Amino acid sequence: MKHLTYAVVGMGAIGGFYGAKLARAGREVHFLSHSDYEYVCAHGLRVSSCDGDFSLPHVHAYRDANAMPKADVVIVGLKTTNEHLLRTLLPPLLHPGTLVVLIQNGIGVEADVQAWFPSLALAAGLAFICSAKIELGHVQHQCYGSINLGNYSCKDEELFQTVLADFVDAGIDAHEVDYLEARWRKAVWNMPFNGMTVALQTQTDQLLAHPATRQLIYEQMMEVIGAANALGISALDESFAQKMIQMTEDMVPYSPSMRIDYDFHRPMEIHYLYTRPIAEARAAGYAMPRLQMLERELLFIDQQNTQNRS
Amino acid sequence: MKHLTYAVVGMGAIGGFYGAKLARAGREVHFLSHSDYEYVCAHGLRVSSCDGDFSLPHVHAYRDANAMPKADVVIVGLKTTNEHLLRTLLPPLLHPGTLVVLIQNGIGVEADVQAWFPSLALAAGLAFICSAKIELGHVQHQCYGSINLGNYSCKDEELFQTVLADFVDAGIDAHEVDYLEARWRKAVWNMPFNGMTVALQTQTDQLLAHPATRQLIYEQMMEVIGAANALGISALDESFAQKMIQMTEDMVPYSPSMRIDYDFHRPMEIHYLYTRPIAEARAAGYAMPRLQMLERELLFIDQQNTQNRS
Repeated sequence: MKHLTYAVVGMGAIGGFYGAKLARAGREVHFLSHSDYEYVCAHGLRVSSCDGDFSLPHVHAYRDANAMPKADVVIVGLKTTNEHLLRTLLPPLLHPGTLVVLIQNGIGVEADVQAWFPSLALAAGLAFICSAKIELGHVQHQCYGSINLGNYSCKDEELFQTVLADFVDAGIDAHEVDYLEARWRKAVWNMPFNGMTVALQTQTDQLLAHPATRQLIYEQMMEVIGAANALGISALDESFAQKMIQMTEDMVPYSPSMRIDYDFHRPMEIHYLYTRPIAEARAAGYAMPRLQMLERELLFIDQQNTQNRS
Repeated sequence: MKHLTYAVVGMGAIGGFYGAKLARAGREVHFLSHSDYEYVCAHGLRVSSCDGDFSLPHVHAYRDANAMPKADVVIVGLKTTNEHLLRTLLPPLLHPGTLVVLIQNGIGVEADVQAWFPSLALAAGLAFICSAKIELGHVQHQCYGSINLGNYSCKDEELFQTVLADFVDAGIDAHEVDYLEARWRKAVWNMPFNGMTVALQTQTDQLLAHPATRQLIYEQMMEVIGAANALGISALDESFAQKMIQMTEDMVPYSPSMRIDYDFHRPMEIHYLYTRPIAEARAAGYAMPRLQMLERELLFIDQQNTQNRS
C-alpha cells in the first residue's frame, strides 16, 4: 500500500516536531513556513530531543501554500491567534479525501474550520509535549511528546487509523480518544494554568505552593469539569482535578505556552482557550465566573503587552 | 458646655488630617504616633490642603498610649493590617463613656473591636478623601474630604451628635448615615477598584477604558450589591453600580489606597476589604466568586510583594 502524503502548516514547536518525526520515518512531508523557509532550504531541520537528537538535511519547504502539492493529511500546528489564515492556506493543500488534523490549543477550532469548509474531514490532535522552536530550523524537545487523536468529522475510518499508525510508526506515543471529552479534559489543566501564570507573572509550582492560589486553581478546574458535565461529558469529575494538581506538583516548574507567548510579547490564545469554552458552557446553561474573570484580565493584559512589543 | 477631648490613633493620611482639623478648630486633640513622634514634637504638624494650607506648631504627641490622657472620643486612623494593635492601644485611652470612631476601610472592623471590648461605644467613620502622608509630620490633602459617621453601638445619642457637630465645626463636610448600608455602599467601589488596580498594575481610568475590565468591574460591583441585598440592605441596586462607574470615569486617574500600599511594599488590607465581606455574604448564603478570586490573587501578590520589600 502506498504511504499517505503529509503537509505541515506551521513549522514551530508542534508542526516542526511531529512533521520531522514523520519525515524521519520515511513519510513524504511538505512543510509550509513563513519565517523558517530560507534557513531550512539551506540548512535543513534539526530536532534536539530528550529521546535523541536528529537532523533532516533536506526537507520539502515552501513559503507559499499555492506552490505545495495536495496532501492526504494536513497537520496544522499554527497558533490559534492565526486561525483565520487557514481560510486561505488550506484550499491549495486539499483533495476530496484529505484529512486535516488540528494540533492546536483550546475549544472550538474544529467547529470554526468546519464552518469554513463544510465537507472537510477533520480530526483533533492533543499534544502532551514540552517543546519550543529555539532558533530558525531548530526545535528543542524537552520532555513528553505523546499525542491523542480525536475524530471530529472524518468518515474514512481507515484513513484516520492509518494516520494514527503512521504516528506510532514514527516513534510517537499516539492514541485514539473521544474528541469532545479529550478537548475538555485538556482544558481542565490548560484554562487555569495558562492564564494564571500570566495574570500573576509566575509558574505552576508557585501557584500550587500558596494555599490561596492552589485553592483558586482547584476551583477553576472544577468550573471546567462542571462545564464539561453540562455538555454531556460524564467521565470527568472532582478526582480528575485532584489528579491534575498532583501531576502538576510532580512536574518541574513550568511556563505554559500562553506564558511563553506573553514573555515574547506575542498575542495570547485567549479566544480558543477562554472565550469559546466559556461561551459553549454558557449556551449549555453553565456559568464559569472565575475563568471569565481570568479571560477579562487576560484581554486587558494582552492589549498592554502587545502594545509594548517594540 | 465643656468641649469633648479627642485622642487620635495613627497620624497618617486619615488621623493626621481629621485630627489636625479638629485641633485647629480649638478641640483638645492628643495624637499617638510611632513614626512621626519625634519630628512632630520638634516641628509640629503641617497640612497642605486644596482647601487652604495650615500648620499646627504645637501638638500633643505621644509615642506610648499609656502616657496619654483618657479621651471622650478616640479616632482610629490605623491601617487595618495593624488592627490587632488596638487590643493594647485602646485601653489606656478609654473612660466608661468614651466613643471610639473607626475611620478605616472594609467590613468587620467594628465587629472585631466590639468582640475585644464588649461594652465599648463604637461608630464607623467613612472618609471620602484623597490624602496622603507625604513626609514626617506633613499630610497632603488633594481633594474631597467629607466623612460619613454611622452609629454602631453608641447608646449616648447626644455624644454621637456632638462628635458629628465637632466635625462640622472643624470645617468638615460630615453626615450621619446608616452604619451597615454605608459600609457596604463604600465596598461597592472599594472591592473592585482597590484589588483590580493591584492585580493588573494599573489605574482606575485604564480599567474602565478596556471593555473587558469595564464589564468585570461592573460584575464585581454587582456581586457586592448582591451581597448587601442578601444581608438585608435593600437601598442598593444596579443603578448604584452604574453611578459608581460614571463617577469613577469623571475622576482623574486614581490609585486607590491598596495600590499605594502595594507600591510601597506595605502589607495590603486584604482581610477587611475582601476576606470578611466575602465571609459575611457566604454566611447569608450569597457567593462572590469574582471577588473571592481577586482576594486569592491578592494574597499571592501580597506574599511576593512584601518579600520584595528589601
